[in-house]
Amino acid sequence: MQFVASEHPHRRLNPLTGQWVLVCPHRTQRPWSGQQEKPQKNELPDFDPSNPLCPGVTRPNGVETPAYKSTYVFENDFPALVEVVPVPPNSDDPLFQIAPARGNCRVMCFHPKSNLTLPTMSAEEIGVVIDEWISQFNELSAKYAWVQIFENKGATMGCSNPHPHCQIWSCSFLPTEPQLKQERLRSYYTTNERPMLSDYVERELQRQERIVIENPDWLVVVPFWATWPFETMLISRNNNKRINDLTLEQRQNLAVTIKELTTKYDNLFQCSFPYSMGWHGAPTGPEHAHASSAHWTLHAIYYPPLLRSATVRKFMVGFELLAMAQRDLTPEQAAQRLREVDGKCHYLEK
Amino acid sequence: MQFVASEHPHRRLNPLTGQWVLVCPHRTQRPWSGQQEKPQKNELPDFDPSNPLCPGVTRPNGVETPAYKSTYVFENDFPALVEVVPVPPNSDDPLFQIAPARGNCRVMCFHPKSNLTLPTMSAEEIGVVIDEWISQFNELSAKYAWVQIFENKGATMGCSNPHPHCQIWSCSFLPTEPQLKQERLRSYYTTNERPMLSDYVERELQRQERIVIENPDWLVVVPFWATWPFETMLISRNNNKRINDLTLEQRQNLAVTIKELTTKYDNLFQCSFPYSMGWHGAPTGPEHAHASSAHWTLHAIYYPPLLRSATVRKFMVGFELLAMAQRDLTPEQAAQRLREVDGKCHYLEK
Ligand SMILES: O=P(O)(O)O[C@H]1O[C@H](CO)[C@@H](O)[C@H](O)[C@H]1O
Ligand SMILES: O=P(O)(O)O[C@H]1O[C@H](CO)[C@@H](O)[C@H](O)[C@H]1O
Repeated sequence: MQFVASEHPHRRLNPLTGQWVLVCPHRTQRPWSGQQEKPQKNELPDFDPSNPLCPGVTRPNGVETPAYKSTYVFENDFPALVEVVPVPPNSDDPLFQIAPARGNCRVMCFHPKSNLTLPTMSAEEIGVVIDEWISQFNELSAKYAWVQIFENKGATMGCSNPHPHCQIWSCSFLPTEPQLKQERLRSYYTTNERPMLSDYVERELQRQERIVIENPDWLVVVPFWATWPFETMLISRNNNKRINDLTLEQRQNLAVTIKELTTKYDNLFQCSFPYSMGWHGAPTGPEHAHASSAHWTLHAIYYPPLLRSATVRKFMVGFELLAMAQRDLTPEQAAQRLREVDGKCHYLEK
Repeated sequence: MQFVASEHPHRRLNPLTGQWVLVCPHRTQRPWSGQQEKPQKNELPDFDPSNPLCPGVTRPNGVETPAYKSTYVFENDFPALVEVVPVPPNSDDPLFQIAPARGNCRVMCFHPKSNLTLPTMSAEEIGVVIDEWISQFNELSAKYAWVQIFENKGATMGCSNPHPHCQIWSCSFLPTEPQLKQERLRSYYTTNERPMLSDYVERELQRQERIVIENPDWLVVVPFWATWPFETMLISRNNNKRINDLTLEQRQNLAVTIKELTTKYDNLFQCSFPYSMGWHGAPTGPEHAHASSAHWTLHAIYYPPLLRSATVRKFMVGFELLAMAQRDLTPEQAAQRLREVDGKCHYLEK
């Protein structure tokens, strides 16, 4: 029998982490009497006087959110990381290793209205979000080794507040995922004298099997090694290293690309599509300012959990936690569905 | 200011994976308007004629589940892994690496009654489950490099059927997590001439800070590097390498330990506590049969998602997916709560 990727279980290597993903086509056909997600209601009010992220509302710490008109950034009232914190004592026991963690956590509202999301905002409004990402990154990257811009969208993805917002957590150290990428990208560069993701973009363009959106500045693909059902990578085609490298035109094109991708996501299952997304680029801070970033390529990653419909998600549990990442349809099948679904007109506007 | 682990954010190293966990005490105090879990109803019938896992019911593939009296094992009707599958072609492109995956997926019912769970079964009934785990492991480990026994409990943990059951997925290869452990345990053994987890058990017994249950054969701790809020490790104190090494007495003690731990979990938030759990021990199959397993110690891991109550869970999203593992209370705080909660009498029996 001949091997057919869309028929036969197999493994694929994620070259960014060195870890394998188990691909099991057709698993989505099994019966499901498990948890049903509640899709986010479309009937949110544009202003909710009890929501601390809305303009003019007082936050739990007594500070009033100003009457902002576009984006608004503030320090998280319950930060995971803080700037001033005592250093833990050294331990020479390899089983009880403890290390300092300094940092800073910010919340960034995308828009004053609670009932908007990136796909229902205009490209101009998304452009303002991108500009704010960059200005935050400019400030924080001067000080911190890693600035993680990320958005948790939807209650299914652990978002604790429905107002459109993202978070920015800055770290005095390189966290696990970027550290792994740093090593793998560097070693690829040493061998091939090319950034791994530039090579990857080129080959995906040749193969045309996993592309979702393609324009002169950006490529959106379901990576060959995707773990989450409709995971995508939005990769710079311009050898950008960090988000603050982008030219005006690249930023404008990015706004359009984000609108198109998130519209496709919403249209796929006709719901406000939940995901976690975030930006990865070359490390920063005094420690990395003078190191070469030639091996890096700026990219965003989208991890959406929905698998079969607006109400049935993929759970990363059991085998996935204890053994390895596993997916239930091929990246090519996911890419085809995302490519074919409308990315111009949002289903709520139809 | 002096460093206090229960006050100050810090990182801890997981020596089994080499990865750091960010520990952020007090994060559980932030407001939560996110997803609320539906705790599993206690009013499940003991027999559901539409549930294919119940005795006498016909499965989607037309096979009738027999009128079993204790445990019952069958091949998964929608297996992620199959034994006979074509081998993918070799690729020398490092960005498109694909590898074979052969295996086998079984479902194992714990009990004929749908409305029981391990904590509400008797220790004798749990003993029968352990014996069945061992007999399955004996058969499958002869052939496969890795036999992953795991239980997804509760809809919150992606369990697609409420009948008490676990799964056994066997793999022709070593998956990511056991592969990582294999390397780290071996290197510790080379340096220290002792299995890492034997040393770890000894030091936890000295420190008495993270112990949940302690008896002559088994130790349950919230590991120093735990990621999930109430994560525990159940570790053999007898230098067992694999689940089929256990003596009758160790198995009996294990049944009592599992009953006590899962009772504590249920009593903590007065609900049927969801989790994913699974067994890790030395690799198997022809490939590993003659390799030394001296560096291994048999252990089970419990990953429960609930954080604050029966309805508020921890989400591993955003920062966790993009940067690194992060937890919202210290392992010592979690251990203390689990240690103090009743493990003898289940809340439904009070
Ligand atoms: O096999 P089940 O119970 O249908 O499915 C569950 O367990 C599997 C193994 O951990 C996971 O891949 C699925 O995401 C989860 O929903
Ligand atoms: O900060 P939030 O939105 O309250 O919380 C959410 O995002 C955090 C960062 O990814 C996670 O640690 C939490 O588990 C999640 O619920």
